[in-house]
Amino acid sequence: MTKPSLPQGTRDFGPETVRKRNFIFNTIRNVFELYGFQPLETPAMENIETLMGKYGDEGDKLIFKILNNGLDNPAKEKQIREDFEKILDGKNNKGITERALKYDLTIPFARFVAMNHTQLTFPFKRYQIQPVWRADRPQKGRYREFYQCDADVVGSNGLMSEVELIQIIYEVYQRLGIPVTIIINNRKILNGIFQKCKIPLEKLNDVLTAIDQFDKIGINNSLLNLLSKGLVQKQIDDLKSILIELATSETPEVLLNNLENKFGNDTKVGVDGIKETKDIFNLLLSINKERLVFFNPKNNPKIYTPSEIKLDFNPYIKLKKGDLNIHFDLTLARGLNYYTASIFEIKANVGSLKSSIGGGGRYDDLTGLFGVPGIPGVGISFGVDRIYDVMEELKLFPAAIHTGTQVLFFNLGNEESKSAFILMQHLRTKGVRCELYHEAVKFDKQFKYAEKKNISFAILIGSKELENKTCSVKDLRNGNQQEMSWDDLLTNFSFL
Amino acid sequence: MTKPSLPQGTRDFGPETVRKRNFIFNTIRNVFELYGFQPLETPAMENIETLMGKYGDEGDKLIFKILNNGLDNPAKEKQIREDFEKILDGKNNKGITERALKYDLTIPFARFVAMNHTQLTFPFKRYQIQPVWRADRPQKGRYREFYQCDADVVGSNGLMSEVELIQIIYEVYQRLGIPVTIIINNRKILNGIFQKCKIPLEKLNDVLTAIDQFDKIGINNSLLNLLSKGLVQKQIDDLKSILIELATSETPEVLLNNLENKFGNDTKVGVDGIKETKDIFNLLLSINKERLVFFNPKNNPKIYTPSEIKLDFNPYIKLKKGDLNIHFDLTLARGLNYYTASIFEIKANVGSLKSSIGGGGRYDDLTGLFGVPGIPGVGISFGVDRIYDVMEELKLFPAAIHTGTQVLFFNLGNEESKSAFILMQHLRTKGVRCELYHEAVKFDKQFKYAEKKNISFAILIGSKELENKTCSVKDLRNGNQQEMSWDDLLTNFSFL
Repeated sequence: MTKPSLPQGTRDFGPETVRKRNFIFNTIRNVFELYGFQPLETPAMENIETLMGKYGDEGDKLIFKILNNGLDNPAKEKQIREDFEKILDGKNNKGITERALKYDLTIPFARFVAMNHTQLTFPFKRYQIQPVWRADRPQKGRYREFYQCDADVVGSNGLMSEVELIQIIYEVYQRLGIPVTIIINNRKILNGIFQKCKIPLEKLNDVLTAIDQFDKIGINNSLLNLLSKGLVQKQIDDLKSILIELATSETPEVLLNNLENKFGNDTKVGVDGIKETKDIFNLLLSINKERLVFFNPKNNPKIYTPSEIKLDFNPYIKLKKGDLNIHFDLTLARGLNYYTASIFEIKANVGSLKSSIGGGGRYDDLTGLFGVPGIPGVGISFGVDRIYDVMEELKLFPAAIHTGTQVLFFNLGNEESKSAFILMQHLRTKGVRCELYHEAVKFDKQFKYAEKKNISFAILIGSKELENKTCSVKDLRNGNQQEMSWDDLLTNFSFL
Repeated sequence: MTKPSLPQGTRDFGPETVRKRNFIFNTIRNVFELYGFQPLETPAMENIETLMGKYGDEGDKLIFKILNNGLDNPAKEKQIREDFEKILDGKNNKGITERALKYDLTIPFARFVAMNHTQLTFPFKRYQIQPVWRADRPQKGRYREFYQCDADVVGSNGLMSEVELIQIIYEVYQRLGIPVTIIINNRKILNGIFQKCKIPLEKLNDVLTAIDQFDKIGINNSLLNLLSKGLVQKQIDDLKSILIELATSETPEVLLNNLENKFGNDTKVGVDGIKETKDIFNLLLSINKERLVFFNPKNNPKIYTPSEIKLDFNPYIKLKKGDLNIHFDLTLARGLNYYTASIFEIKANVGSLKSSIGGGGRYDDLTGLFGVPGIPGVGISFGVDRIYDVMEELKLFPAAIHTGTQVLFFNLGNEESKSAFILMQHLRTKGVRCELYHEAVKFDKQFKYAEKKNISFAILIGSKELENKTCSVKDLRNGNQQEMSWDDLLTNFSFL
């Protein structure tokens, strides 16, 4: 017999952790419902061809594949050998695996929409709160099994969807008590900049890497490195002039206008991206008014340092509680290939976590992957594990969620406990969460049980109380104790 | 591009189904919490040695195994070949699979208790509501991925646990509106009968099969068939005399007393089982009084037909609503090997489903499998898919759970919809679930959207209403329409 253990990168969640996680799930679910989103659940396993090829080569490797049934059965040896030869010959992998665990919620959702598009009412607004699995190397804060909480609108091009999703992000983090900044960009603007500078879009990652290094080696050196990536001097000069433009603009509005002028007629997609971003910002302004805060690119002499171009992520002290903080950041790109327009990322303004705690974006044609083109969509995803870590660090979980059982009836003997049981059933009918200790042992042991389970009240019925139909109620939080009749206990006492 | 599909035996759950399933889950969860049970969640995947060998040979075959990462990667060809040869040689299966999807919630729970027993407070009362996976042949009502809802008490021998679990079953089905019968037996009594008749316990399945055939071929023929299974005439005669005893007893109490007399000093385990069952029944009587109904073995001249020995499952018309219906059935055995004392099974008294919708039992030493002996326990499990089917058939789901969005704001133009959006945000703050239609199209289309989503109210703000700061509120359930100011909408109107 081996010592029992858990697979690497997976976790058990005990009572307190489940309660805290459910607090996060319920908060997100309630806000999704408030905005008219409907729940969807898809299976843990998908056909392998539904998933493979959707997340890039790296993603394919991280998908957990399920062994076909019977493959570890020695009786099927001949079959296995034959199947395996085929796999090694590259002919197919049907013999060994046909199913896999889902890697995210977006592709299964696209598969669902493609399968059901004739029955669905569009725009279809769905939310989904389920685990996903990735064969990543486990490390702190990164697990092989973790939950995603997604909301997507499909079947509408309207920018109102983006605005609603931003409001949802705002509302969720308000309710959780985490002040956040929502970073916004638009893939079309990025495309426009690259078109304007005549840089091929394949160089996007190289350029973003260069921008990331501004604070380490300076903007000039950093951009010069792009020469080795195949860019020419003219492209680098054009790019630099745009980046300086951005860094010196006083407001997002000025920035967008200047960029629009620069684009002129050279890039239609860039101009479209600017128009979309302006429309989203104007809609946000019209419905949020005084609580909306735009982070402006600073007008600062040290224009070449990164703080002008990237957000300083310690701005919370300057903000009022309840502000909706938006940062327009041209360097936000987000990894996923399928985004085509607006993109979002959420960062906490407090706590030590620097990575994002959520994000999303618009995609033009996700279901096209499954043979149903022409259904655009936009979605967001909340990172529950990271939200949990931030809330733990900042002690943001409300005290009330720690309470399971409210009342422990002590077990003081056979007849006594029978009456206790009957009283307990009456209290349960009234919604009071109760337990009766399972055996008549020493007070100490029963008190200790109550203490460990964080139970607020103990009710004691001994032989004397049994005779008088009374009980002794002890508030374990402050030690107060009072005698009362069973009638009083059931009709007048409050267990708050 | 292949047409998207779902793996056999798995399901997508659309909005309405998720809401109905959540109604069942929440009902069960609330009752579990009322009885002091605490939530636990374990990962979908376990180490393969945690699961294998725990469910019998048949079970082992039905466990979904997960392919080790990289095994479908042609670059690893040599490694795979070598690993595979080892598997075929029966040396190990480490090369191909080390993890598997959980098959039930009990074994992972036992693994959790074994890993954490030094930190847990006993008795540990946990509930767990999670999916499990079985590579069964899919058929109507049987899926490869399905939820289980389990509650277990470990670390106590007290029969109060059994009584509490029976009360939980009663309370859950009361709240769901399904009248049920709880069938009870005790493995120790079965063992006692076999000891008394000197029949080896391995013949249990043969004997139960014979009893199942009483109504088809008669008790005598049926029992005679046991000769071919290796029983001798004396054993069959003794067994028959006990079965007749049972069939002629007027009440469960008489039955238990008669059986106890028969057992005498021949079987200690049998007498223990009778004592336990009596204690449970007496506890149930003391806390339920008038609402407890025992199904009696009937005193009927046709004593050899099965209706005397097995429950007639159409007794509901004879019962009062709210009765706690207990049937003591000596032919109940339940398949799982680990049960050692009380066993339960739940059947619906209404609807067409004949199979059980839940069950459970006591086990002496589940964590012993993982090197931590001496922790007894007792548990129950609710079959959510079957409960769902019964509730659908009998239309037991409350109407309120079908409602997602309560209010649809019509989109009647750019400026109009901006004001609508602001009003909507105010209503959402007050907890009203709203949507604004995503584009300014014909009324028809917007009404159709409201109808399909089962939305109760439409709010219209056209150019005239915009000017007067009013709106038109239409109750889509009855067609009533009224004009009101924005102030009235936000402060006085009720969306119920």
